[in-house]
Amino acid sequence: MKALPIDEQLSILSRGAAEIISVEELRSALQRAATENRPLRVKLGTDPSAPDIHLGHTVVYRKLKQFQDLGHEVYFLIGDFTGRIGDPTGKSSTRKPLTREEVEANAKTFADQVYKILDPEKTKIVFNSTWLAPMTFEDVIKLASKYTVARMLEREDFAKRYQENKPISIHEFFYPLMQGYDSVALRADVELGGTDQKFNLLVGRELQREFGQTPQVALMMPLLVGTDGVQKMSKSLGNYIGIDEKPEEMYGKVMSIPDELMPNYYELVTEVPMDEIKTIFAELAAGRLHPRDVKRRLAREIVSLYHGLEAAKTAEETFDLVFRRGDIPEDIPLVTVPAEELDGPGQIWVVKLLVLAGLVGSSSEARRMIKQGAVKLDGVRIEEENAQVELASERVIQVGKRKFAKVVPA
Amino acid sequence: MKALPIDEQLSILSRGAAEIISVEELRSALQRAATENRPLRVKLGTDPSAPDIHLGHTVVYRKLKQFQDLGHEVYFLIGDFTGRIGDPTGKSSTRKPLTREEVEANAKTFADQVYKILDPEKTKIVFNSTWLAPMTFEDVIKLASKYTVARMLEREDFAKRYQENKPISIHEFFYPLMQGYDSVALRADVELGGTDQKFNLLVGRELQREFGQTPQVALMMPLLVGTDGVQKMSKSLGNYIGIDEKPEEMYGKVMSIPDELMPNYYELVTEVPMDEIKTIFAELAAGRLHPRDVKRRLAREIVSLYHGLEAAKTAEETFDLVFRRGDIPEDIPLVTVPAEELDGPGQIWVVKLLVLAGLVGSSSEARRMIKQGAVKLDGVRIEEENAQVELASERVIQVGKRKFAKVVPA
Repeated sequence: MKALPIDEQLSILSRGAAEIISVEELRSALQRAATENRPLRVKLGTDPSAPDIHLGHTVVYRKLKQFQDLGHEVYFLIGDFTGRIGDPTGKSSTRKPLTREEVEANAKTFADQVYKILDPEKTKIVFNSTWLAPMTFEDVIKLASKYTVARMLEREDFAKRYQENKPISIHEFFYPLMQGYDSVALRADVELGGTDQKFNLLVGRELQREFGQTPQVALMMPLLVGTDGVQKMSKSLGNYIGIDEKPEEMYGKVMSIPDELMPNYYELVTEVPMDEIKTIFAELAAGRLHPRDVKRRLAREIVSLYHGLEAAKTAEETFDLVFRRGDIPEDIPLVTVPAEELDGPGQIWVVKLLVLAGLVGSSSEARRMIKQGAVKLDGVRIEEENAQVELASERVIQVGKRKFAKVVPA
Repeated sequence: MKALPIDEQLSILSRGAAEIISVEELRSALQRAATENRPLRVKLGTDPSAPDIHLGHTVVYRKLKQFQDLGHEVYFLIGDFTGRIGDPTGKSSTRKPLTREEVEANAKTFADQVYKILDPEKTKIVFNSTWLAPMTFEDVIKLASKYTVARMLEREDFAKRYQENKPISIHEFFYPLMQGYDSVALRADVELGGTDQKFNLLVGRELQREFGQTPQVALMMPLLVGTDGVQKMSKSLGNYIGIDEKPEEMYGKVMSIPDELMPNYYELVTEVPMDEIKTIFAELAAGRLHPRDVKRRLAREIVSLYHGLEAAKTAEETFDLVFRRGDIPEDIPLVTVPAEELDGPGQIWVVKLLVLAGLVGSSSEARRMIKQGAVKLDGVRIEEENAQVELASERVIQVGKRKFAKVVPA
């Protein structure tokens, strides 16, 4: 392995990280790998449900990619053991047990998607049922003996529920233990996760120590904010950019994010070098770059990653055609949305916005139009009836080819 | 099954019970058994360590015997699964894992002892490893999902430790769950235990309900107080009467208990009918019976149970010979033990008593004499160097054949 100097590796791996426990241990791990001439084993856990990867997920995948580019090995841990159990209390209908076939089909779809980012040669997809399913009651007792009730109850969601007298079933304590034991089974050197995974990542460190291993480095990435500029990107909130979306949709969606998110997106979901990013935002601050151009570059960078440079350019041209060369009529009505109609700061439900803008006669017509794919905001198709959209400054909403309105918050 | 009327069965089974959850359910269970013409399945759990049964244990065994006499079946559940695991934290050296051979040897010794009380024909000795050892991680998760963390933390010892920030390992939650699941596996109709087992017995009820069974009746017996009249009978406290002891030792030890314990002993560890017991103590209260004679009868009853009536009579004669016909010299010194030398109300460490009585020159001599079997208190050999002995009224302590002292608390 022709490794970069440790400091350079550290600098690349720290990019965008919310927290690393600890940087010193990461340094030692990189040194150990260099000395022993072996790659680090970098783990990411994922649940076994059907994946539909969006930019939010890529924050962590890009970090894995950086590890791979530095010569390290990625272990994608699919939590199929938990998935096969489902919800043993039977209370949650959304957590039906998955069959082996479903798990395997999902894993295939998942691989197809992540290989758009990761190098298949340096990626191993592993299933935790491999080591968890054969464990006996005795093994489970030994595992459970490694962790105390009090420490488990320190996890934020458990602490809250315990405080509020909401029931926590004993089996729930096993999810962090299983995730932690996965690190033991994989002999992980590093585990990645979102900031919401901190507790579980630390359980992994603890269990590895108990099992006589060097504790993994816990590297946490921030959660990406969605196109609404408010909530974390998520399919169910309708504020996501899927990596399988068409170049034009993707380009338009990136153009729709609030300006304040741009530095974050540049850092977390593009490959633009950090030095260059710093220069861009210095220029922007100095008024030597226009925000629109910074955002156009961002949109091009992101589309290029998933569709190539040519497709990105074409998407940009299409976008320009619609927005700058007048596919939108000049004399469209301007509707001011009263502050009390907003559902949150700068946020409104798209159905309500369509009604207020006078483009539809009723909520049900609005929903129908969305279902037909006839509704666009700043040229980007709205796909979710429940989408909350950003309304912090003037935007153009349209239904079909001829009905337009400019909407602006009061 | 020629069953007694339900009310008579209930009256027998309630004798001496500290708590029954619930009497109404016990009545229904007895009725069900009568209707379906099948015996009740009565469970008692025991740990798999080497047994050395004393009168304290027999409180529960006699209750089992009563069930058997009424035609029901006893399941002696040996918790070998837990025994084979030992203490997974490795902190307790006293809980070394037992081998299968050790468990089986202990079970054999155990059977030899309990069959002095129970009918082997109506007793089944079962091992919980039979159903616990084959359980998979998935089975364990399902089991753990049936109970909440908050309810488990209600158990007195857990609550106390949690409050005091003393660590509780997660695996400890499994001991009550396993004991409870044993009731499911055995389809127990009734579970017996000491009052200290209440929580675990209730977990059994809960789990049976979760698994679609009729919850077992929890029948709790009080803990028998030892010969010191203060602490519960226990081998390590030296205040016990073993059921394998020689008739003379057993007789002498019973004679050494404080008078206040007599009603309790009559009720819990003899077969004297309750009506008769009531009469005895009414006569005693009226001054028509002497306490010494009531105690002599108690000693005879207990010795008879384990050695037969003849041996009991001989033991009584021997006792009389020593105590009443003057094997103890009349002119032995009287030593008053100052209150501040007592280790508790009416209690003193036997080694200290020997030194204070002037019968030995040092603690180490006292220990040596005890080891040699040369020390007796009221004619009963002291076997444990650490024994706490009762000293509420005048007693005779002796070393060898010639050194005597009367000791009396100040």
